Amino acid sequence: MSLIVQKFGGSSVANAELLRNVGEIVTGTYEQGNDVVVVVSAQGDTTDDLIAKAKEVNPNASKREMDMLLSAGEQISASLLAMTIEKMGYPVISLLGWQAGFSTSSTYGSARIKSVNPDRIRNELDKRNIVVVTGFQGTNKFDDMTTLGRGGSDTSAVAIAAAMHADLCQIYTDVEGVFTADPRKVPSAKKLDVISYDEMLELATLGAQVLNNRSVEMAKKYGIELEVLSSLTKKRGTIVKEETQMEKMLISGVAKDNDVARISVIGVPDKPGLAFKVFSKLAAKKINVDIILQSIGRNNTKDISFTVSEGMLEDTIAILDPYVEVIGAEKVVYDKDVSKVSIVGAGMETHPGVAAEMFEALFEAGINIHMISTSEIKVSVLISQEEADNAVTAIHNKFFHE
Amino acid sequence: MSLIVQKFGGSSVANAELLRNVGEIVTGTYEQGNDVVVVVSAQGDTTDDLIAKAKEVNPNASKREMDMLLSAGEQISASLLAMTIEKMGYPVISLLGWQAGFSTSSTYGSARIKSVNPDRIRNELDKRNIVVVTGFQGTNKFDDMTTLGRGGSDTSAVAIAAAMHADLCQIYTDVEGVFTADPRKVPSAKKLDVISYDEMLELATLGAQVLNNRSVEMAKKYGIELEVLSSLTKKRGTIVKEETQMEKMLISGVAKDNDVARISVIGVPDKPGLAFKVFSKLAAKKINVDIILQSIGRNNTKDISFTVSEGMLEDTIAILDPYVEVIGAEKVVYDKDVSKVSIVGAGMETHPGVAAEMFEALFEAGINIHMISTSEIKVSVLISQEEADNAVTAIHNKFFHE
Repeated sequence: MSLIVQKFGGSSVANAELLRNVGEIVTGTYEQGNDVVVVVSAQGDTTDDLIAKAKEVNPNASKREMDMLLSAGEQISASLLAMTIEKMGYPVISLLGWQAGFSTSSTYGSARIKSVNPDRIRNELDKRNIVVVTGFQGTNKFDDMTTLGRGGSDTSAVAIAAAMHADLCQIYTDVEGVFTADPRKVPSAKKLDVISYDEMLELATLGAQVLNNRSVEMAKKYGIELEVLSSLTKKRGTIVKEETQMEKMLISGVAKDNDVARISVIGVPDKPGLAFKVFSKLAAKKINVDIILQSIGRNNTKDISFTVSEGMLEDTIAILDPYVEVIGAEKVVYDKDVSKVSIVGAGMETHPGVAAEMFEALFEAGINIHMISTSEIKVSVLISQEEADNAVTAIHNKFFHE
Repeated sequence: MSLIVQKFGGSSVANAELLRNVGEIVTGTYEQGNDVVVVVSAQGDTTDDLIAKAKEVNPNASKREMDMLLSAGEQISASLLAMTIEKMGYPVISLLGWQAGFSTSSTYGSARIKSVNPDRIRNELDKRNIVVVTGFQGTNKFDDMTTLGRGGSDTSAVAIAAAMHADLCQIYTDVEGVFTADPRKVPSAKKLDVISYDEMLELATLGAQVLNNRSVEMAKKYGIELEVLSSLTKKRGTIVKEETQMEKMLISGVAKDNDVARISVIGVPDKPGLAFKVFSKLAAKKINVDIILQSIGRNNTKDISFTVSEGMLEDTIAILDPYVEVIGAEKVVYDKDVSKVSIVGAGMETHPGVAAEMFEALFEAGINIHMISTSEIKVSVLISQEEADNAVTAIHNKFFHE
């Protein structure tokens, strides 16, 4: 008998019919003799509907009250799923985050799980109950409701799996697994059977929105095997696990991220430490800088370019604009119409030609590269946004030629 | 400085505009230097909407899961009201039943409050917060969500008032107070300034749906002064308190209850104990019997008539039908088209002519009385439902002649 944690997102539990479908997956797993813990998000648009209600009374409501409001969403979906499973004739119980032992930090709206005390869940499993737990939420040291931020239900599922040493944590979603590229854009994209935590992390960071990053980090830390799969097709999905157990793939995927803006500080005087000061100013405001490029400008100056997410663009400009004068630079320019296209693969560590092959694919497609960034298992390029889909297809064809 | 508990029903918090209205009442009370604890029901039709969602997945869902589902309703209204008050610039915090210390019995769907530990509420009041508490809910000894049943938010409010020795507990509703008769039916009906707990209890039982009965019982037990008033007109309402402090009114009100059915067991053999057996059979099934009448039938038999609520009619007939043969009675007949009309008044204890005056009013209006029941502060008659409104007006005019 295994302990299996199954997580279902909001689109998987949006109505009575879909709840029934989830009930079939869950009870099927239970029928095979497994202990089953189910983690659910709020139904479909519930969270957005509640946010709209809040905005109507107070556009600047405190995060504490927002968490109180939003956590009602999973309470509704969890109890409805439990009722659905009751109807199918199986023993089941729903538990709220605090009942399931989720203690979190106090940061309302984006709390971090500090610990999961699984006593109550264990107790219910011992009674042979299927246990449905509200994802996305917990309580803090004040005994107040907290939420983990968007996508937090993935993390809730992995946290339970870690605390209970589950044999498998299945993340059900609306795609069939992790693909070598976005299958809606690249028809030849293939579903991966297996991918390592590190590759999955790079892919998630790079815009392949399959799994929440914190959940993958936690799964890696505690060695929890994840499976990403579709709640509708019920085919086998993609297993995410430690890479040592498998053949290293040269390239596991090509990903695109449009949520990126390039900023350049032009004409920075060539004095030591100025670049450092620019980035420490941004770090102090919690602005994450991604690709960085420093180039030689005219008249003994440098140009410093880097990328941030689009949401951070305005804040970044606001910080840099007054600072330009202080350090004697010329001006700040930015470009939002850029995309980051990346390849990820644990195998590239030992195959130095991979980056060159990627650049060749882009050259053959006539696509100009603005910036380049590499890590041990990743190569990213910044290109014009309008060329991004072509770039993904060209790179994918190069590495995954049919 | 006084401690005031204010309870608002679902129709008072149904949308953003009404929430704002409630916010004004609450902050107005706070501005006068009072500590304010607010108890809210779920918004408008939320509870009915959630019940409909449940029925769609499982018409026979367990009460445990129903309570899990329904308690989300007050969570939403409480946080929205807190946000509304935040917007108005006042310090405020919302608390769920369990956070506010509500421990209940384990009977899901109709739990009873066992205790209220007001430490958290007190703590928040000490910080000068307005405290918004979800009515209608608590947790039981298993740490599971429970609800108090319909109208339970009144009881929640009184329980907090009792636990914290509040100076006043205001029940805001959509009527301006307790009237001498239903003002929609009897234009000359007057709002009472004061009424005793016992009179209020009789009126509530008799179908004047202003206050939940359990809340009045609890207020009486702990000597909590209640005020029933409208959240819209903001006029002074009706105070409910111990009668010793006031002039006893001869009659405090006339009430009508259509939710009543008359059942007659015809031709019961005149042997001792048979009537007792009929009623003990009903009591065993938790069927409440109200007015009882025993009359002489033909051939040395008796007819036993009594009333039950309409919802209990089917169960009652099902129990009696097979039993009729066992005791050798003739048959069971019933009538749903009846109403119970009652007068209530603490003063009638010492004024024996009150019942006669009521019967006279009915006689003058040409209304036939089927059954009569009296208590120390109440006289009820059973009449045809179609004559009930006329009966209320006739009786009201008799006692409250302009």
